[in-house]
Amino acid sequence: MNLLEQTLATLRYILDSSSIVTGGAINPRHHTDWSHYAPACPGILLLPRTTEEVSKMLRICNTHKQPVVPQGGMTGLAGGGVPRAGDIALSLERMEGIEEIDPAAATMTVLAGTRLETIQQAAAEAGFLFPLNLGARGSCQIGGNIATNAGGNSVIRYGMTRDLVLGLEVVLADGRVLNLMNKMMKNNTGYDLKQCFIGSEGTLGVITRAVLKLHPLPGDVTTVLCAPADYSSAVRLLRTLQRKVGTPQAYEVMWPAFYRLGVDWSGQTAPLPDDKPIYVLFESTGSAEALEALLADAFETGDITDAVIASSHTQARQLWKIREATGEFPVRLKPLNFDISLPIGEIDAFIQDCQQHLDSRFPGHHTLYFGHIGDSNLHVTVDLNSVPEPAPVEALDELVYTAVGARKGSVSAEHGIGALKRDYLHHSVTPEALEVMRQLKQTFDPNGILNPGKVLG
Amino acid sequence: MNLLEQTLATLRYILDSSSIVTGGAINPRHHTDWSHYAPACPGILLLPRTTEEVSKMLRICNTHKQPVVPQGGMTGLAGGGVPRAGDIALSLERMEGIEEIDPAAATMTVLAGTRLETIQQAAAEAGFLFPLNLGARGSCQIGGNIATNAGGNSVIRYGMTRDLVLGLEVVLADGRVLNLMNKMMKNNTGYDLKQCFIGSEGTLGVITRAVLKLHPLPGDVTTVLCAPADYSSAVRLLRTLQRKVGTPQAYEVMWPAFYRLGVDWSGQTAPLPDDKPIYVLFESTGSAEALEALLADAFETGDITDAVIASSHTQARQLWKIREATGEFPVRLKPLNFDISLPIGEIDAFIQDCQQHLDSRFPGHHTLYFGHIGDSNLHVTVDLNSVPEPAPVEALDELVYTAVGARKGSVSAEHGIGALKRDYLHHSVTPEALEVMRQLKQTFDPNGILNPGKVLG
Ligand SMILES: Cc1cc2nc3c(=O)[nH]c(=O)nc-3n(C[C@H](O)[C@H](O)[C@H](O)COP(=O)(O)OP(=O)(O)OC[C@H]3O[C@@H](n4cnc5c(N)ncnc54)[C@H](O)[C@@H]3O)c2cc1C
Ligand SMILES: Cc1cc2nc3c(=O)[nH]c(=O)nc-3n(C[C@H](O)[C@H](O)[C@H](O)COP(=O)(O)OP(=O)(O)OC[C@H]3O[C@@H](n4cnc5c(N)ncnc54)[C@H](O)[C@@H]3O)c2cc1C
Repeated sequence: MNLLEQTLATLRYILDSSSIVTGGAINPRHHTDWSHYAPACPGILLLPRTTEEVSKMLRICNTHKQPVVPQGGMTGLAGGGVPRAGDIALSLERMEGIEEIDPAAATMTVLAGTRLETIQQAAAEAGFLFPLNLGARGSCQIGGNIATNAGGNSVIRYGMTRDLVLGLEVVLADGRVLNLMNKMMKNNTGYDLKQCFIGSEGTLGVITRAVLKLHPLPGDVTTVLCAPADYSSAVRLLRTLQRKVGTPQAYEVMWPAFYRLGVDWSGQTAPLPDDKPIYVLFESTGSAEALEALLADAFETGDITDAVIASSHTQARQLWKIREATGEFPVRLKPLNFDISLPIGEIDAFIQDCQQHLDSRFPGHHTLYFGHIGDSNLHVTVDLNSVPEPAPVEALDELVYTAVGARKGSVSAEHGIGALKRDYLHHSVTPEALEVMRQLKQTFDPNGILNPGKVLG
Repeated sequence: MNLLEQTLATLRYILDSSSIVTGGAINPRHHTDWSHYAPACPGILLLPRTTEEVSKMLRICNTHKQPVVPQGGMTGLAGGGVPRAGDIALSLERMEGIEEIDPAAATMTVLAGTRLETIQQAAAEAGFLFPLNLGARGSCQIGGNIATNAGGNSVIRYGMTRDLVLGLEVVLADGRVLNLMNKMMKNNTGYDLKQCFIGSEGTLGVITRAVLKLHPLPGDVTTVLCAPADYSSAVRLLRTLQRKVGTPQAYEVMWPAFYRLGVDWSGQTAPLPDDKPIYVLFESTGSAEALEALLADAFETGDITDAVIASSHTQARQLWKIREATGEFPVRLKPLNFDISLPIGEIDAFIQDCQQHLDSRFPGHHTLYFGHIGDSNLHVTVDLNSVPEPAPVEALDELVYTAVGARKGSVSAEHGIGALKRDYLHHSVTPEALEVMRQLKQTFDPNGILNPGKVLG
């Protein structure tokens, strides 16, 4: 018997057989196609219903030193949930449901397998906002969101997933159950252990439950598209907006090539001329008068040269369609997407660096820049159709991540490291920090059974 | 030579002698009197000027297995910075100064020994708010604030210190320097190590630098004192306020005994009758019209029965004087203060539990309740003059903390565990979590030299 068979025998002996699925190809369960990374292979899929079952499963795997890959909604973009040959997958999909909404505390207690959209809807029905929001909301699970410290559309206003988690229940590699459930904003009783698991991509423990922080529902939204004089005007506009009107719900910056393509693909006449140096699409929930006064001021000082305020929901939707061109990237381009972050003041200079390196290395390349600059996040998309075959993915990765490192940026703003970015971690993380991360991994998972090959390699 | 002398000899050999102070009694450096806990004893005080010096000092102490107590402004209320006989104190006071304010990123980079007030002022001069604010602002250091994950007056709106830290530099027990400096809101590159050190009270590493997050300056403040119909009305009012006007800067709840005493001590005529079941003092920066409409509504529904809106800065100050009666506690009472937190919906019931236990155990006791309920923080103060001599501090601690544990509250909302609350940690932390905290301590500080006897004991 090999390791997998031995573990399977013990699992079958201890557990209810309905929670063990064998024989299927477990990789294709993923949202995106990972066959280039790990060819579909038959394997074992564990489907626990309770924390106790998770605990038993991990205890058995730990005893056998059998690698386990935790899986949420499998929408992750860094390959963190992709099993390798010989790995066992442990999916949280049956641990689904909202346990409690506490309106006084403004908290929601959920099982880790609950889909994000379910949580958003339940919050809204209770008169609250759960502000985490991303394109994968219908499939991703809150456990996956926490394990990746997901970002999304409203980080500028509400923070990352980390900022929305008050308590956790986690099963450690050896099966110990760690109850860190908590409803309080203030709780300084020793080390805040839950922080270790948030963003650890399934390598330090399996998240089984969580207490989430709910926010008040926001008021009416005004959508504005404007053209700042340049990048620093765009930053200044953001800071003034925050001070005078309130932090916007979204502050999306588009550089010209992206704007033109967005207008073109959305089939509308350009709401603003397409010869501006930069465009900002933002959503404000502050007072409409204060907003208009601020825009008038910004015209006066020259910080913006043009603007359109959506006068209806339909017009707002039209403006957003420009930004949502990204949804068509996979169909219309052969996109290589970079999810990076930089100190806000460095973003424009970084784009110049990057463009220059690309120009000299890959003349004729077609590269798009856009981002949520308020939270320091820049997206760079290189259309692989515009560079020579076979796609020089590694060379492009190295080029972009080196430029990121040079400006003290991060090679992963929100998608995490998973299997894809391990080799580039060193551009953003010092050797000493990597060493301490390894020590932490060793502490929580001495046998290295939890998601080996991910994050630290 | 004993341990201390041996370590001193090495320190003197390696380091500039001006950074080593000996012979003085190092305990009285504290803001409050700790002589009951650790009688003033002569000792060694280290005063590094650079991170490199901190690194050398720790490396030496680690080699000798010599205990070291990191010290900030020494205003901590849990005794975390109090040395025991034989400990070496390492003060950050010479590592003081603001390295950079980056207005585009809205960040400030500081040395750990910088006083909070200096940071607040520099932020304001640059047109930003650094929202951490507490009574000890003139003495406490940002390193101490981070090490204790300090709370303070504006947590409801801006969060704890943890929420205001983007990056850290930390020296580990063995002298390794961990550079975790970062200016980005989004940065998912492996484990977020800085979280381990925030709130670890000097037991896992010495904080030497930090990148802080700045907020926009808030607009004009309206101060309101009102009398909700009962506790749940007070919570409902908070939630409505958040939704319709914006999260207040402060939301201070006072139970009647506290209110009466506050009015009395401040020497003013009661701004609201003193027979109400509960009082709320809050500060709003939202639109004045929206606020008035909300208060009118709340009168209508019966959620509040009386209210006064400060019409001038002077009147606002008068209202605050009632809440600031706490400043006179040390002079007018013999206060035993509890810094606890509870799920917001449980606070009133907890007070009833607590009062009932106190009534039966200490008839005639005089106990005051007040708190920042928006962030789940309750203060309970027992006047030791109202209970039999000698002060039954341990019995009171046990009584209150047991009641806290029964409602899943926290025995330390913001002051930390330090030396004082170690014995009560188990009311809020499970044995498994305590075990994992010990593992973490072992990982970062295998020789146990950093602040031994604190937090975990
Ligand atoms: C269309 C689309 C849009 C997206 N937009 C965004 C965006 O705006 N912002 C953003 O940050 N991400 C975005 N993503 C990426 C992805 O949705 C997030 O990373 C999401 O948080 C992953 O959740 P999941 O449940 O699908 O996790 P999975 O993909 O199943 O797993 C992700 C990682 O978490 C681990 N994991 C999952 N569940 C658990 C658990 N219970 N305990 C421990 N470890 C666990 C896995 O091992 C893996 O390492 C997007 C993805 C798609 C497909
Ligand atoms: C009048 C008054 C009002 C207060 N109000 C509040 C309040 O509203 N909210 C609140 O949370 N607290 C409050 N406190 C408590 C205290 O001010 C805070 O805990 C503060 O954060 C401590 O900072 P400090 O620099 O004085 O730290 P110290 O007291 O010197 O140390 C506190 C702990 O941190 C460790 N430490 C200090 N510096 C470092 C460093 N650089 N690296 C590693 N470890 C370090 C010490 O070892 C110790 O364990 C108040 C105290 C007073 C006297």
